[in-house]
Parts: sequence; C-alpha cells; structure tokens
Amino acid sequence: MSFFQGISEPELGLFVDLYELTMAQAYHAQGLEQPAVFTLHFRTMPPGRNFVVACGQHHAARLASQLRFPRQQLQRLAELGHFEGAFLDWLAGFRFTGEIRVLPEGTPVFPHEPLLEVEAPVVQAQLLETLLMNYISTETVLATKAVRTVLAAAGRPVVDFGMRRMHGFDAALRGVRSYRTAGLTATSNVLGSLQYGLPATGTMAHSFIQVHSDEMEAFRAFARLYPGTTLLVDTYDTLAGVDKVIALVRDEGLQVGAIRIDSGDLAQLARAARKRLDQAGYREIRIIVSSGLDEWSVRDLIAAGAPIDGFGVGTRLGVSEDAPSLDFAYKLTAYDGEPRLKSSPGKKVLPGRKQVWRCYDQAGCMVEDIIGCHREQHTGEPLLITAVSQGQPVSPAPDPEQSRQRLQLSLERMPKPLLALELADQPYTVRISDALEALYRQTLQAVTGGGATVAPDDLETGTGHLK
Amino acid sequence: MSFFQGISEPELGLFVDLYELTMAQAYHAQGLEQPAVFTLHFRTMPPGRNFVVACGQHHAARLASQLRFPRQQLQRLAELGHFEGAFLDWLAGFRFTGEIRVLPEGTPVFPHEPLLEVEAPVVQAQLLETLLMNYISTETVLATKAVRTVLAAAGRPVVDFGMRRMHGFDAALRGVRSYRTAGLTATSNVLGSLQYGLPATGTMAHSFIQVHSDEMEAFRAFARLYPGTTLLVDTYDTLAGVDKVIALVRDEGLQVGAIRIDSGDLAQLARAARKRLDQAGYREIRIIVSSGLDEWSVRDLIAAGAPIDGFGVGTRLGVSEDAPSLDFAYKLTAYDGEPRLKSSPGKKVLPGRKQVWRCYDQAGCMVEDIIGCHREQHTGEPLLITAVSQGQPVSPAPDPEQSRQRLQLSLERMPKPLLALELADQPYTVRISDALEALYRQTLQAVTGGGATVAPDDLETGTGHLK
Repeated sequence: MSFFQGISEPELGLFVDLYELTMAQAYHAQGLEQPAVFTLHFRTMPPGRNFVVACGQHHAARLASQLRFPRQQLQRLAELGHFEGAFLDWLAGFRFTGEIRVLPEGTPVFPHEPLLEVEAPVVQAQLLETLLMNYISTETVLATKAVRTVLAAAGRPVVDFGMRRMHGFDAALRGVRSYRTAGLTATSNVLGSLQYGLPATGTMAHSFIQVHSDEMEAFRAFARLYPGTTLLVDTYDTLAGVDKVIALVRDEGLQVGAIRIDSGDLAQLARAARKRLDQAGYREIRIIVSSGLDEWSVRDLIAAGAPIDGFGVGTRLGVSEDAPSLDFAYKLTAYDGEPRLKSSPGKKVLPGRKQVWRCYDQAGCMVEDIIGCHREQHTGEPLLITAVSQGQPVSPAPDPEQSRQRLQLSLERMPKPLLALELADQPYTVRISDALEALYRQTLQAVTGGGATVAPDDLETGTGHLK
Repeated sequence: MSFFQGISEPELGLFVDLYELTMAQAYHAQGLEQPAVFTLHFRTMPPGRNFVVACGQHHAARLASQLRFPRQQLQRLAELGHFEGAFLDWLAGFRFTGEIRVLPEGTPVFPHEPLLEVEAPVVQAQLLETLLMNYISTETVLATKAVRTVLAAAGRPVVDFGMRRMHGFDAALRGVRSYRTAGLTATSNVLGSLQYGLPATGTMAHSFIQVHSDEMEAFRAFARLYPGTTLLVDTYDTLAGVDKVIALVRDEGLQVGAIRIDSGDLAQLARAARKRLDQAGYREIRIIVSSGLDEWSVRDLIAAGAPIDGFGVGTRLGVSEDAPSLDFAYKLTAYDGEPRLKSSPGKKVLPGRKQVWRCYDQAGCMVEDIIGCHREQHTGEPLLITAVSQGQPVSPAPDPEQSRQRLQLSLERMPKPLLALELADQPYTVRISDALEALYRQTLQAVTGGGATVAPDDLETGTGHLK
C-alpha cells in the first residue's frame, strides 16, 4: 500500500470546481456548442507591486490542450450523483479543439491585460477554468515576488531556500521555474532543480554541527568531502565559528568557498566576519546570509554597506508573504461571435477577443500599453501569441532561459520608478483603445437593457492606471 | 508526450533540500549512525492567531516511513555531481527504521510544542526534514485559517471555493483535508472531495448566465437539470435576478434551493433579497454569499444581522492571506543519547525527546500545557502518540471524521477568549517543566562552554506565553 497523496495525470480532469462540470453538462444537454472567448486577467495590482510577472500561462495552455477524462476517473465522478451517462460518455471522448493565446512567459503585465485567452466551444473552454487559474496563479505570484527580491539584491546572487514552508509539493517545484525566470541564481530544491534546470545548491544545517563533538570537527569533515563548500558558522558563536574556518583553511589547507550566517544582526556580523577573513588573507571566501529575508531586508543590508556576497531567501519569497494571491478572473467575454459582459459592481470585464500592444519610445523605453480588440492595428508590440491552435500546441514548450532573458530585457525597458520596491508615484499607463471602449459601452448597454449609467471611471482600477 | 508536471511517487525522495543529501553523504562517509531526535515545532504564533491547528503530521509520518530511492531517481541525483557511488548504493537500500511521534490530527498547538518528533539514525532523520516540514506546514497553515472562518460563521455553513487561487494542485487538494478537519461544510473542489470525503458542492458561474440569451432562460435551464440548485443572481442586477427566480418558482414550479450573491453590498442585498423571497412566500429559499470573504467579513455580515444562510469562502482562506506561513523548524535535539542544542540568537530549541501534557480544570476546560522530558510524569493528557515504530505505521491512517471531532471537542474545552478572532489579552499558558528547563540550561552551558548567559526570558516568545 502506498501513502503517496497527490494528483496523477489521469486525475487532472477532475481538478475542477464542481460547477464547471455541472455547467458543462447543462451546455451539453442544451446543445450549446458555439465558440466562446474566455479571458484570464487580474483586476487590481496586488498590494505593493508596480508590475506582475506573467508565468505559467504557456505551460498551462499546453497542459489544457492535453486534458482527458479516462473512464476510471469518470466512474469516480459518477459517485457524486450529479452526472448522467450521456454526459460522462461525452467526457470520455473529450478533446480540446480550440485556440489558446498567451503572453510569453516572463512578460510584465498590468491589471485588465489578458494573460491568456481561450477561444473554443463553450463547454470546452468552461472546463479549463480552475486548472488554468490555479496553474498560472501559482507561478505568477511567485515570479512577481521573486523578481522584486532579485532587483533588491542589485546583482548579487539570490538563492531559493524556501521549499520547506511553501504550500505543498507542486508550488515548491513549479516555484523553481518561476524563480529561474525571475533571475534567481540557484535553488536548494533538488527535484525542482532537476525538473527546471536552475542549479542546485546548499550549505549545511545546524544539526550537522551539533551531531559532531565540536564545530571544528564538523567543518573539517564537511569541507574535506566537499572542497569549496559553504560552512554555517552561527550554531554557537558566529565569530568564533569564523575563526575556526580561518584556522582550518590556514592550518590544514581546507578549501572553503563561503561562510553562511543564519541568525543575529546580519549586517554587523557580516562586517566583523569580513574583517577577520580579510585580515587572515582570505578575501576570496564569500559571505552568504539567510534568516527570514525578503526584498526589503535584502535592500536594507545592501544599503547598510554590509559585505554580503549572496542571499538565501526562503519563506517570505516562497509564500509571497505580503501578497500571497492575485485576484485572477477567467471570464466569458464573447459567445457565438457576440461580445458578452456581466455588470456586477466592481468586477468589470473587457468584452470580446483582445490584443495587448506594448508601446516604446525612441530610446526603447516602455511608455504605455494599449488593450484593444484583436483586429485593431496599433503601433507597438502585440504581446499575445498563439500557444495552442485547433487543440494542438503550435510551438515547443518555452525555453526557460529565453523566458529569463525576456523578463530581463523588459526590466531594462521599463520606466525606472516601476523597478523600485515602493509603489511608483505614477503607475504604468494601460490604455483601452477607443474601439474597445466603445464595444464595452455598447455591450454593457445591451446586457443591462440600456438602463446602466456607465461612469467615465468605470474602468479605473485601484493601482492600475487605465485611461 | 505528456505535459503533466508534478511529483510522482518514485520522485518523493528527491523532494529534499540539497543539504540534506550532502549532509547524509557526510554522515554516511563518517559512519555517524547513532540515533538522533529531531523535533518539529514553530517558534512564534503566526500574526493574529491565538492557536494553531496541527494538521498533516500523522499522514506525513506515514509517508516518510514509506520513503524509497528507486535506481532511476538515483541516476538523476548522480547528475548533480555531488554524490559518490557508495552513497547512492546506500540510498538505493534506504528504509526508514525509526520512530515518529505526532500530535493527533486536529490538535490545537502552541509555540515550542512538538507537532512531531523523529527518533532514528541521524542520516535517516535528516533526510526527512523538508518533506515533513512542507507537508505539515501546508495543512497546518490552512486548517488554522479555516477554523477561524468556521468560528466566525457561528454555526452557518462555510464552503471552500478557493482552489483556483491556491498555491498549486497539491495545496488545493490537501487543503480539503484541512478544511474537513476544521469543520467546513463542503468544497467546490471535485478531486479534493473525492480524495478526502468533504461533500462536493457548487453553484454556477456568471459565464453560464451570459451564454444564454437572457438570465431567466439560464436559470430555467439550470434549475430544470438540477432541481433544488443554487442560482447566481448578480450577473446584471441582483434584485432583478431575485425577482426572476421568484417568477420561475411561482409560475413554472421550478425547485430552487438557494440564491447566491457574489458582488456588491452583500448585507444590504441579502436583506433586500430575503424580503422579496419572504414576501413571495419562499422562506425556504436560502441565501448564500461569496466575494473576497474571510473570517472578518463573515463575522461582520453576521454581526450586521444579514439574513445569510451560508458563506462561500475562497482566496483569502486558500492562501491564508494574513498569515501564509508558519515559522516551522525541524531541529536536532539529541544525538547518541545526549541532548543537543544550538545557541543561535532568537532561535531557541528545547533539548531531548519530549512530551506535551494538556491540563484541564474540573469543568474540563484547558488551563495550561506542560512541555517536559518524555519520561516525566504529569497530570494532564499526554498529547504525542506513536505513529511509526521501527519504520512501520502502528495504526491505521487517521479517520478524518475523528480529526474533525477532536478539534471540535478541543474548541469546546479551550478558554473562550482564544476562540475570538482578536488576539486574546492573555495567551494560553505553555509551561516548560522544571526538568526540561534544567536540561535546557545544562545543555546550553555544555555547548557554549559555560560562556553563555541564559537570561530568564530566553524561552519567552512573542505571542506564546512560556513560563
């Protein structure tokens, strides 16, 4: 008997909210099979963010295109008592036949911009809702937090130490892909490293020191086995630990690449440790710190001039502590060729099939984005690309190195105030095209029977800057 | 070709931080095979919490006892370049042979109390670190948030709608187990429901309404297919939606169990909807609300006297928005029969193998917990039980209904102020036994060579109340 708990590939189709299946059965029973457009976007900028890094959408699109409902899983579904044989038979033959357009992995994105659009028979598109949202949400939240940490570190290496307190296996693993896109240097996560190609790294735990009769003996054993390794010096007395490292290197010729400090006043201890290492002539031994770090404390340590060569960042990155969710929505915006909207207060949606154009000035700096109807022409770079067409992926899976480079280039072209940890005085401008705005008003009037008063600021968002 | 990304059972052994493997290889090379004790606990109460609900530790212990390193996975490990053949051969034969003691699932727990202790040859115990921490952390964080939501709802049903914005598949699924323990009524998560036995439920999405030419037609189609269902009334105009539901029930005899309101001023709309339903004679049609709810907004809605019969709670529960992590630590506390400690500032650990006794007054109300050395005798209920002995689970997997009942009973016996959403003026008392405190001081003195000054408040925690 196995105690493994998780999700197997055949079960993926059951990773849905119940209503997607009950609605699908209703569509099926009613013969509602016309194409629909669903748009995945977020409504408001998460707290403290100037931009969000879209991650996971291309992979999610490929995953969705492979969705199946094996018979064995349908038997489990039948247990719920909501589904009839005809619908379950239909599910058994389910194949996604539509189109999915996505922002490339690693694209900075702003409120109301589609990260992904699905165009498919409504019953197919509806069934993808939760799978797409959960998948993309996870990687996007983590990449957005991670890039802030990388920016704060101002070129010094940032290493992921967070897997132990992340929310489950899946987040810990796919987080590594987000971190690679965001520019982290390495991860302690072995399986994540093997799956996503971010180098694996690690130091040692306090337990290793404690198991040995003394700290010196532990350092000696570890560095002999792993020449050039990092030694953890704060188990008992940090500076005494540093002195032991120096003695081992000097007297026994051990090779030590770095020391790690994991508690106490990191800036002060790093300074004192640097001084001792330098005085002993070991300028090449680096200093790594960890202990509850996030982008703010990384920035403060650098601002304080602490001689730190790398940061191990764990929990606060791994759960995106200050903004653990994004208000993603996956909304119907067209059915049977007609734009559709809901008019629920505070939850506005842009109708139809759309495109996002990113506009640059002559120096190559981003100046504004335009969200428009997909057939419009605008100067600027159209961002949404086709990932799945007629149910099949149209390109290889995104190369993670390319995703990283794309984000890096975007950061270079972004208005500088958006790269600060603080909220920029002036949020980035996202403009709704005249044609889309007209379509919005017209569609809203149609659904509310002309009774709705559309205030000019109806499309404004809290921290976005929709014009 | 499959695009499924996840973790398969054979890969579970690679769900480790690299240092666990490098340390294990070092222990193995040095022949350090004596038994160690590792304790899993958290140091400080997460913000805003009066107690934490321990979840996942019994299942994690069983999972750990089954850990294997199949040859195919070892080949992947070899790619990392850190591991020698002798160690990989040893991993191929890895079997956990030790003991794991745990708090029963659903036990309220406080800072410094062990949720789990592992006693095993050090190399085995070390390899379990990340697996145990990630697994337990996920379920404990979610159960702790969930029970607050259930308490706020004061007996009204709370339903999980959160899977779409949770961190990955694994968290969304195992979250359902936490929610069941915490007393949620149902979940929208189909696979989670099938895996963990919390009833599946759901309503309909706005998209279903929008696909139909008018709202009435959508309601009619859905309620005919699912008599007694819940209809979502806020797509266009909430009270007009309610009137349509009334008309359908009155004129066409449709059976409707409830309406759902998902936007706007929920209290005001619920009142107005209730009035219309009652005036039409449909007192039995219930009102369900959703839309960014958490324990605070649920409490406010109830305090405002809003006629709400159930709450759909999503994102803020699913990511534990205000406290998405717990500062869990998995620390060596004994090796080869001797207590061990580190003395890193601010990161105190209690030495040795321990027990927690929960003490009740004559009325059966919890008065204090005592953390002591495991061989001590105290009045009170000893909480840690053996889940795995000599590498084998000693009892069946915990019954989820029993876990729920255990938590429910604990809540009834807990000092009332701890059940409030606000921080209690007086945190629950956790006392360190005299024997354990003496051991702590003695061990600390041993590791610091008598140089450490142990201040009386060394064991105090921020929001715990250690005496």
